[in-house]
Amino acid sequence: MPTDNSNMLKVIEDFPLQCRTALELPKGMTVSGKVDKIVVAGMGGSAVGGDLLKIYTHDSKVPVFVIRDYKVPNFIDENTLVFAVSYSGNTEETLSAFEDAQRKKAKIVAVTSGGQLAVMAKKVIKIPSGLQPRAALGYTFFPVLGVLANSGIVDVKGKEIEEMLDILSKTDEFKAVGERIAKKIGLRTPIIYASELLGAVAYRWKTQFNENSKAAAFYHAFSEMNHNEIAGYQSINKNDFVAIFIRDKNDNERVKKRMDITKEIISSRVDVEEVFTRGEHLLSRIFSGVYYGDFASYYLALANRVDPTPVTVIENLKKKLK
Amino acid sequence: MPTDNSNMLKVIEDFPLQCRTALELPKGMTVSGKVDKIVVAGMGGSAVGGDLLKIYTHDSKVPVFVIRDYKVPNFIDENTLVFAVSYSGNTEETLSAFEDAQRKKAKIVAVTSGGQLAVMAKKVIKIPSGLQPRAALGYTFFPVLGVLANSGIVDVKGKEIEEMLDILSKTDEFKAVGERIAKKIGLRTPIIYASELLGAVAYRWKTQFNENSKAAAFYHAFSEMNHNEIAGYQSINKNDFVAIFIRDKNDNERVKKRMDITKEIISSRVDVEEVFTRGEHLLSRIFSGVYYGDFASYYLALANRVDPTPVTVIENLKKKLK
Repeated sequence: MPTDNSNMLKVIEDFPLQCRTALELPKGMTVSGKVDKIVVAGMGGSAVGGDLLKIYTHDSKVPVFVIRDYKVPNFIDENTLVFAVSYSGNTEETLSAFEDAQRKKAKIVAVTSGGQLAVMAKKVIKIPSGLQPRAALGYTFFPVLGVLANSGIVDVKGKEIEEMLDILSKTDEFKAVGERIAKKIGLRTPIIYASELLGAVAYRWKTQFNENSKAAAFYHAFSEMNHNEIAGYQSINKNDFVAIFIRDKNDNERVKKRMDITKEIISSRVDVEEVFTRGEHLLSRIFSGVYYGDFASYYLALANRVDPTPVTVIENLKKKLK
Repeated sequence: MPTDNSNMLKVIEDFPLQCRTALELPKGMTVSGKVDKIVVAGMGGSAVGGDLLKIYTHDSKVPVFVIRDYKVPNFIDENTLVFAVSYSGNTEETLSAFEDAQRKKAKIVAVTSGGQLAVMAKKVIKIPSGLQPRAALGYTFFPVLGVLANSGIVDVKGKEIEEMLDILSKTDEFKAVGERIAKKIGLRTPIIYASELLGAVAYRWKTQFNENSKAAAFYHAFSEMNHNEIAGYQSINKNDFVAIFIRDKNDNERVKKRMDITKEIISSRVDVEEVFTRGEHLLSRIFSGVYYGDFASYYLALANRVDPTPVTVIENLKKKLK
C-alpha cells in the first residue's frame, strides 16, 4: 500500500541538504539603517520560519513579530525590517501585508520562489520552487537569518550551524523516533506540548500532522497549560488523545518539574510520549525538535493511508475563494 | 442534580456589575515618562485581560506583549510599562517575571487581590478577592485599561464603555445562546475559531471550557487555520468534535468569505455553530464575544455534571509543585 506518491520521504530526508543550500542564498544581502523591530509576514508553512526566528532571537533587544494576517500592525515604520515570506509568492494575505508594510515605509525583503511577490518586491531572495511550502522550511528560515546576520542584527556562529547540520544528518535516528511516535498515536488525536520558548516547535508538529497526516492535532505550551488545559483532562477518554511532550535540557527547572508532575497527573487519562531535543546550541535544539515531528507526521500519514504530499482540501478552498 | 455549589452562575451574571466596579479602581493612577512598549505578565485567567488589551489596542503605535513565562523579554527597559497581573498575587511565574522586569528597570504596575505581589510592588491596584481568577476578568482588564487611559497612552471613550455595559446587561440573551451552544456540544470536543484579531476571544472560550466545564477544547484563528488545520478535518469523526465560529461584523471581507467556505467544506465532518459579537464599538464586540463563552462553558459544566467553580486538578498540581 504505497501512498507516498510524490516521495515526501526523500524531501524530508534531504532537509539537512536543503539547509546547506539555503545558507548560501542570502550571501551578500544586507539591510542598512536603524532596525528596532523585525516582522515576518507569512501564512502556514511560510510563517513557521518566523516563529522559529522568534525563538532563536528570544534574547535579542530587537523584538520579532510574526504576522499571519492581511495587515501589519500600526507600529510598523521605516525602522522596521519586514520579511514577506510566501513560498509560492501568491499567498493573498502575505501580498496584502506586503503592500501594507510598503505604505508604512518599512524596509522589506521578500523570500519566495516566484509569483506576484517576486514581481512586487525590490529586494527578493529567490528560493527553489517545486516543494510543498511546509517542506521548504530550510529555504524560508535560513535566508531570513542570513540577512539578519549579514546586517549585524543577529550573531550566528559557524559552530552552531555545523552542530545543527551534523545532528540532522543522522536521519535514521529521527526516522526511528518519528515512526515510534506515529505508531503510538494510531487513530488518536495528538496534543503536543513544549515550553513557552519552544511552543512554536509544538505548533510545527501540529501543522505537520494536519497537512501531512490529514489528522486533527493540537498544541499548547508550558506552563500556561497548567493553568487551564490540564483541567480538561478530567473528561478525556484514553482512546481519544495522546499527549506528546517536547522536552529541552535548557527548559526552566520549574517547567521541567511541571512537565514531570503533569505527566503523572494526566497519565490516568492519556498516554504520554516524550521527545528530547538534541544538541548544545539552541539552533540544533529547535531544528532537531522540528525534525522529529516531520518524520512522525510522515509515518502517521502512511498509517492513515493518505498521501503525505497533496493537501487537496486547502487547494479546493483556494479555488472557491477566487 | 444541582452541581453549581459555589454559585458560579451569579458570578457570571454579575459580570457587568464587576466591570462597573472595576472601572473605578484605577482612578487617579498614572505612569509618567516615555512608554514605547506595554507588557502584561500573567498566567491563565489573569493573562486573558492582556490578550484582550492587545486586541483593543491593535491600532496603536505602542505594541502590547502578553508574557506567560518566568521571564520578560530582553527588549524590556525603562521605557516599558509592565503590568504584573496575578489575581491571587502568588502566581510563581508572574512573581518571577515581576522581579525580572524590576531588574530591567521597567515601570511596573501590579494588579492583584493581595499575596506576595501586593507586598513586592510599589504601584498596586488592589482588586476584590474571593473569586476564581478566570471569573475576575473585569477586575484584571479594566484597571490596566484605566491606567493607560489616565496616562494618555490609549484613548477610551465613555460611549464605548456605556455601549458595552448596556449590551452585557442583557444577560438573558447571552444565557440563551450559551445554553444552546452547550447543548449542541454535548459530549463532543469544541474547537473555537475567530479572526486573527479576535483569536484571543476564541482562546478565552477554550480555557473556560477547560476550567468551568472540565472539558477538552481547542482554538485557532482565521485565516491561518485555512493553511493547515482544515486539512485535519479529513479524518475527523462527526461524533468527536464541534466547530464554533465567533464572527464579527468588522471581520475582513476575505476572512468572512473564508469562514463561509470553510463552514461549507467542514460541515460534512463536524457540526458548525456560529456566534455573532454585538455592538458598534470594538470593546463591546470583544466582551460580548467573551460573555457568550462564559455562559456556554457554564452550561456545559452542568451538562457534564461537574461543579463549574473548583479546579481541583490545578490545585493538586500546585501542591505537588511546592
